[in-house]
Amino acid sequence: MPETSRDLQLTADGELRHFLAIEGLGQALLTRILDTADSFIEVGERTIKKVPLLRGRTVVNLFFEPSTRTRSTFELAAKRLSADVLNLDIGTSATSKGESLSDTLLNLRAMASDMFVMRHSQSGAPHFVAQSVTPDVAIINAGDGRHEHPTQAMLDMLTIRQHMKTFSGLRVAIVGDVQHSRVARSQIRALNTLGVDEVRLIAPDTLLPHEPEALGARVFHRMEEGLRNVDVIIMLRLQHERMEGALLPSESEFYRMYGLTREKLAYANPGALVMHPGPINRGVEIESAVADGPQSVILGQVTNGIAVRMAVMSMSMGGQLNERQSGTGEGVAST
Amino acid sequence: MPETSRDLQLTADGELRHFLAIEGLGQALLTRILDTADSFIEVGERTIKKVPLLRGRTVVNLFFEPSTRTRSTFELAAKRLSADVLNLDIGTSATSKGESLSDTLLNLRAMASDMFVMRHSQSGAPHFVAQSVTPDVAIINAGDGRHEHPTQAMLDMLTIRQHMKTFSGLRVAIVGDVQHSRVARSQIRALNTLGVDEVRLIAPDTLLPHEPEALGARVFHRMEEGLRNVDVIIMLRLQHERMEGALLPSESEFYRMYGLTREKLAYANPGALVMHPGPINRGVEIESAVADGPQSVILGQVTNGIAVRMAVMSMSMGGQLNERQSGTGEGVAST
Amino acid sequence: MPETSRDLQLTADGELRHFLAIEGLGQALLTRILDTADSFIEVGERTIKKVPLLRGRTVVNLFFEPSTRTRSTFELAAKRLSADVLNLDIGTSATSKGESLSDTLLNLRAMASDMFVMRHSQSGAPHFVAQSVTPDVAIINAGDGRHEHPTQAMLDMLTIRQHMKTFSGLRVAIVGDVQHSRVARSQIRALNTLGVDEVRLIAPDTLLPHEPEALGARVFHRMEEGLRNVDVIIMLRLQHERMEGALLPSESEFYRMYGLTREKLAYANPGALVMHPGPINRGVEIESAVADGPQSVILGQVTNGIAVRMAVMSMSMGGQLNERQSGTGEGVAST
Repeated sequence: MPETSRDLQLTADGELRHFLAIEGLGQALLTRILDTADSFIEVGERTIKKVPLLRGRTVVNLFFEPSTRTRSTFELAAKRLSADVLNLDIGTSATSKGESLSDTLLNLRAMASDMFVMRHSQSGAPHFVAQSVTPDVAIINAGDGRHEHPTQAMLDMLTIRQHMKTFSGLRVAIVGDVQHSRVARSQIRALNTLGVDEVRLIAPDTLLPHEPEALGARVFHRMEEGLRNVDVIIMLRLQHERMEGALLPSESEFYRMYGLTREKLAYANPGALVMHPGPINRGVEIESAVADGPQSVILGQVTNGIAVRMAVMSMSMGGQLNERQSGTGEGVAST
Repeated sequence: MPETSRDLQLTADGELRHFLAIEGLGQALLTRILDTADSFIEVGERTIKKVPLLRGRTVVNLFFEPSTRTRSTFELAAKRLSADVLNLDIGTSATSKGESLSDTLLNLRAMASDMFVMRHSQSGAPHFVAQSVTPDVAIINAGDGRHEHPTQAMLDMLTIRQHMKTFSGLRVAIVGDVQHSRVARSQIRALNTLGVDEVRLIAPDTLLPHEPEALGARVFHRMEEGLRNVDVIIMLRLQHERMEGALLPSESEFYRMYGLTREKLAYANPGALVMHPGPINRGVEIESAVADGPQSVILGQVTNGIAVRMAVMSMSMGGQLNERQSGTGEGVAST
Repeated sequence: MPETSRDLQLTADGELRHFLAIEGLGQALLTRILDTADSFIEVGERTIKKVPLLRGRTVVNLFFEPSTRTRSTFELAAKRLSADVLNLDIGTSATSKGESLSDTLLNLRAMASDMFVMRHSQSGAPHFVAQSVTPDVAIINAGDGRHEHPTQAMLDMLTIRQHMKTFSGLRVAIVGDVQHSRVARSQIRALNTLGVDEVRLIAPDTLLPHEPEALGARVFHRMEEGLRNVDVIIMLRLQHERMEGALLPSESEFYRMYGLTREKLAYANPGALVMHPGPINRGVEIESAVADGPQSVILGQVTNGIAVRMAVMSMSMGGQLNERQSGTGEGVAST
């Protein structure tokens, strides 16, 4: 049985079953996620922000790394779909009693939960789990190691599409610590799959992945060159906690070279979008006047985060239902 | 644009919009809060303790200081109004990533939440936030620094009204560490606004605010004098964590002078109510026989806390709705 | 007023009122719990895993000892019954402000909660609480000291009945650290009440309770003898945290003597069930090939845990309702 991302993530009919990575998903499916998310934007604007799509379902937020921000948006998304939510901060609990990851998961599955939203410090942990679950359980990757953070990338894509209408013809620059960023990995893949003209990475060599061109990106070391003619600028967070040793001279040196100031923004196309996954380090990655300026869509990204998470949660649950009814899922097929 | 408490807290029609402080609210509005809370008392006695007033709304408990007790009563109140509740203990999360309070709030607002119940160690933090939110978001102060704790004061007022029927003619004594007590500040204001005859503070000079008379209170240093002819005795908690250095000789010395014993209670009017915000330090602020005695209404205060919180939550949401519909809110007016 | 477990746990009509211990409950009632749990198994298999039995009720998870696993199953069970759930981890909160257990509980009761699911390090704490609550509040013991953990025992009974259909004629062996196990105490009582032929304890003398025969169990020191002819093997967890000093030579020595390997399993009857409350210490109490083998029902135990907890929660709420309506409860009778 093949276990590439694509095979794990899709049902036999090509529906979303798990959401583990952008890698392996095609343009049609990514577009369907964006379309579904668009339809949920309206729900967040209602007085009664609820739809009954996951009523009676149990969603478990399984966070092996702490993240109030991401966990909260998944919790809100699940509640707006009318699901019951169980928050589990692992690390202080079961695993500290010496239980293995796979035993923890077997136990959680035995509680008849429908979906696990999982963050883990090890790349591939959600894939590992998705390989073993029964066909009626969906796994959503909320960030694994340095691998992917696919819902973050999709909320960025939704934000770009809202403002630019289309991906074709766009030049997008991703600036900062690409090497340690699972967000950047997911963004590069999503942008290429959705058909932008060019993905640029702007960073010093020490913060670049090993083979950037293999990812489908063009490398620049200076903002002055990299930002020329771009339509979208995605700033990354400096992940202090991820960097070992001195890859950077200093924060102020980084800001001088790669911080997005009004001066540097002027190199980009007029009206270029300014994006950042948050939380912002003002004066380190970005100047306040830019973060709060007219080209910034940073807060729109947050709002879109709820809608995108509602989309992948409801779509994967739908895929699970199909799978279970048609009996073509791997777990069912093997009985 | 004026930004006094009154202007921030009320809509153009005089409806509650945020609930930040007792200061600035008039007798009619405080009475309306008590009347609304009275109607919710009955909900807590039903088998099904729910009303659909906030169905589909998202309430975020935003606690920058930990408080299981207050957070729990707000959580229960929100759930009984059918809202979805998100508990965020900040300090261990976003702000530890170096994000500012205002960025944290901008992000939370972008998640399309309807109400923030906020506790913060800095006086005025909820005002600061209320000044910047869009007209469809309500802020409830759950205690800010040494400033105010208005829902605690209103549950005390509800308890007094239940037993005494009216405020006029009452003498009320507040005993203990007034200086460090946001609860006392809110109580003094509420009692005066609701028209009691006299508010007394009984404490040593070291635990009194700087200008007690300006607050509308009369100062006593001895229980024997201060309790004479009073109808209600409100004991304060000794906030060990708030007191720096040695403002008190010792706990036993404090108890001897200001602890509410049966002997001291006898100075007050027969049937005087005994109140305490909890948690009680038995044998430090109050004798067990008094805390559990026939004049104690301490547990009734807790029950009333849910009803009062349901009242201010539903009223402020109603004010927000009006504001949004009529388009007279400041945020709307400025577009 | 008598305050044995039986009297505290049952209404005048013999309905469940609190669920504190297996001790004091008869065969008919335990069987009714299992029958009710059976009916909830089906709910966990539905797409919409909810029944409205506790709609509008407030269930407080009051954990004075941390336990993600047990707390989560109670939370899921309560949500599937449509209750509102409040999770309180005490120890870091109210009690750290110097409040006594009984004051904490009086306060929680004043919040008009309907049910407290309580875990405490002191044996008898839930009994203590149940003695004082009003007739409309139910207490569920989620594990107290070394005393009892009755829902764990009942989920084990449900698992045995599912596979063996009946208890009569069965020989059941409980293996490991019986002395420190509240689970084992509840299991021994439940097995005897439900009418198994023989309960065996297999452990070194240092891990046996003082008078095992008084509990209705037969003692064996060697697996080779104790497992002969048994139909069910219940492995206990080695509670490292509960053992003071060196009661055991070493983990590997324990495993050699009492670990359940394929070789030792062969002493039992063919098809004997293998059970473990989790989390498993693989290679300490049990060999992986056995834990994951065809005779293991360990994950079924977890699934049954939700159903059993739904059963005792809904039954005790029903008993409370009867009590309140008929006015025969102690609190009501005394007014």
